[in-house]
Amino acid sequence: MLSEKMLMLGKKSSCIREIFEYSKKRKAEIGEDKVFDFSIGNPSTPPPQIVLDTMKKILNEKDAVALHGYTSAAGDLVTRRTIAENINKRFGFEAKPELIYMTCGAAASLTVTLKAIIKEGDEVILLAPFFPEYNVFAANAGAKVKAVLGVGEQFDVNLEGLEKEINKNTRAIIINSPNNPTGAVIGASSLEKLAALLEKKQKEFNSHITIIADEPYRELVYDNVAVPYIPNFYDNTVVCYSYSKSLSLPGERIGYISVSPKMQNAGDMFAAVCGAGRSMGYVCAPSLMQYTAAVCDGVCPDVESYDKRRSRLYSALTEIGYSAVRPDGAFYLFVKALEDDAFKFCERAKKYELLLVPSDDFGVTGYVRIAYCVTEKQIEDSLPAFKMLYDEYMGEKK
Amino acid sequence: MLSEKMLMLGKKSSCIREIFEYSKKRKAEIGEDKVFDFSIGNPSTPPPQIVLDTMKKILNEKDAVALHGYTSAAGDLVTRRTIAENINKRFGFEAKPELIYMTCGAAASLTVTLKAIIKEGDEVILLAPFFPEYNVFAANAGAKVKAVLGVGEQFDVNLEGLEKEINKNTRAIIINSPNNPTGAVIGASSLEKLAALLEKKQKEFNSHITIIADEPYRELVYDNVAVPYIPNFYDNTVVCYSYSKSLSLPGERIGYISVSPKMQNAGDMFAAVCGAGRSMGYVCAPSLMQYTAAVCDGVCPDVESYDKRRSRLYSALTEIGYSAVRPDGAFYLFVKALEDDAFKFCERAKKYELLLVPSDDFGVTGYVRIAYCVTEKQIEDSLPAFKMLYDEYMGEKK
Repeated sequence: MLSEKMLMLGKKSSCIREIFEYSKKRKAEIGEDKVFDFSIGNPSTPPPQIVLDTMKKILNEKDAVALHGYTSAAGDLVTRRTIAENINKRFGFEAKPELIYMTCGAAASLTVTLKAIIKEGDEVILLAPFFPEYNVFAANAGAKVKAVLGVGEQFDVNLEGLEKEINKNTRAIIINSPNNPTGAVIGASSLEKLAALLEKKQKEFNSHITIIADEPYRELVYDNVAVPYIPNFYDNTVVCYSYSKSLSLPGERIGYISVSPKMQNAGDMFAAVCGAGRSMGYVCAPSLMQYTAAVCDGVCPDVESYDKRRSRLYSALTEIGYSAVRPDGAFYLFVKALEDDAFKFCERAKKYELLLVPSDDFGVTGYVRIAYCVTEKQIEDSLPAFKMLYDEYMGEKK
Repeated sequence: MLSEKMLMLGKKSSCIREIFEYSKKRKAEIGEDKVFDFSIGNPSTPPPQIVLDTMKKILNEKDAVALHGYTSAAGDLVTRRTIAENINKRFGFEAKPELIYMTCGAAASLTVTLKAIIKEGDEVILLAPFFPEYNVFAANAGAKVKAVLGVGEQFDVNLEGLEKEINKNTRAIIINSPNNPTGAVIGASSLEKLAALLEKKQKEFNSHITIIADEPYRELVYDNVAVPYIPNFYDNTVVCYSYSKSLSLPGERIGYISVSPKMQNAGDMFAAVCGAGRSMGYVCAPSLMQYTAAVCDGVCPDVESYDKRRSRLYSALTEIGYSAVRPDGAFYLFVKALEDDAFKFCERAKKYELLLVPSDDFGVTGYVRIAYCVTEKQIEDSLPAFKMLYDEYMGEKK
């Protein structure tokens, strides 16, 4: 009587969200501070003060009918103008307000973009490790998914692997830099090579291969690492943005899609985005948050506080003996599991109340993702547990 | 290079939203108060004071990390408990929090519900006149749509027509009471007959036919008309609700899906709803609005102010000579066009700066929809225009 696919999807639930729900239960059982939940990318730092102040100011000052009424389906024009101006200032680009579509956050940005471009038989390439829900979003649009595993310790873009997997049906490639789960940022020279490869393949197959740049972590980078703006490297790019992480507003569902004006038929691409949003019931993005974004777009998150957590956790874990790549951005640490089966490793970690996410759904085996967007206290309190877990494995090896 | 379907959908755009956009342009040209825009259901009354106060209170008092962080994908449990309790108190029902899924408004409620139940080959029945986007939402889920025209002046439920159209592939029927565009409320005796017909057909075809009750206008009824609670009449019901109209929050995108616990496999139905939401990128509904709904669910809109508008417009138009059904609820007047072609009629109305919506997309020809959720001043100021339009037609007839 039901769509079997949706039933399966609902029953299985996302691996990350499953642990998140377990965590809530477990915390209720043994106490909030006894469970070391590193499962979900729910920022532990509050929104920057200006964001909170802006919301209150808008609620106090803006006419309530206009404030809470529908905006245009694509979003408030002032908001879209501000976003375009900021992009152009920061990246020397030529973004256009009329090619920006406000969304209910990153997930919506991706499902809408994919739905806009995918036709039957089309393929989407993911660079592993990748955010697991990409599979779900691509399937919703009807795309076949292929994954190309990154190379080396840092999972760099695997150009050779990509060249082999791209064919006439390849319609899009999802790029996520800074990356969830590794924190890696793709540098300019890698992007140049990637763009050249895609240009070559577009010519070879007389096709369109769109880069979907999923950038919720753009503002979250450390040590002054630069995150190159992909539309400056490759014309056929759609940027999917979200304020969830940069402004610590994951629950409020606000983000945008920015179609590059350098794309061939950019106007049609934007129309298809509008059509896809409409078909899935995305009429307008939450209005108070749109008006907040109009003021707060470009506001920086508290990078320093995340940096502290990154440094502390990275140093402590590698000191214990764990092996991990030092992340350049985002708030995840991708750590080698102490046995091949990451699921089993995570199960053992649970004994110490450590909630980690196995890497398998990210397209890589033998790792775990640790979301360190938690309190400093949780990090400190969890270190003995990480140590005991490590010692348990080392004891067995002796 | 794009999904042709999405491109078409984006280019065509909804008839209502097209007029809404024209209206914005025209207002900029000749002045806000010179254009009589009756096109869109954007409430002109502000949210009730308690809604505004609640938002501010939550922003001032709730911890910002928890407030703006992710809730469970299905929504905050306290919010869902409140909603279930209110349903049970008001309708003597047994709604369950664990079968309530918070959504980004009515459109999301519908697309998610449809996606959860539709399999290839399934059909959805609409009762004409109906909200035009039902067609778009059903198509997104892959359903074939059939429309059954209501009978009589008030477009009552056409049981005979329904009996003919229901077959083994019929998977759902969308009921919208109070109705957009007629304002009609389906009474208890009609519902009893409808339920009996559907039960009979379910047995005949050994199938499941779900009533999707789209109820954004539930709280907007006049003259103390009762809106029967459909799950009390028919077990296989999913209620789709939105606070857009009742709390004047259309821009904020907040609503819910309530699966009847009396439905066979209600748990699976709910899981499929979660799966469908996930597949389309609906991770959690906007959190500030969820917490607001937890306090304000059940708050009544300013019915009196809409009633004033309804009475004034209905009396004035029928006095001029127009023919319309007096609505029991919602904030639309469904008026007979003065020529067979409603599009041509609306074009002529534009000359007098009257922006009306032709009925064709609602599945009926020869009518227009007038959304009277506008200011009283707009209604008063528009009456001479309605009179001139009427006189123009009458002059030609002589």
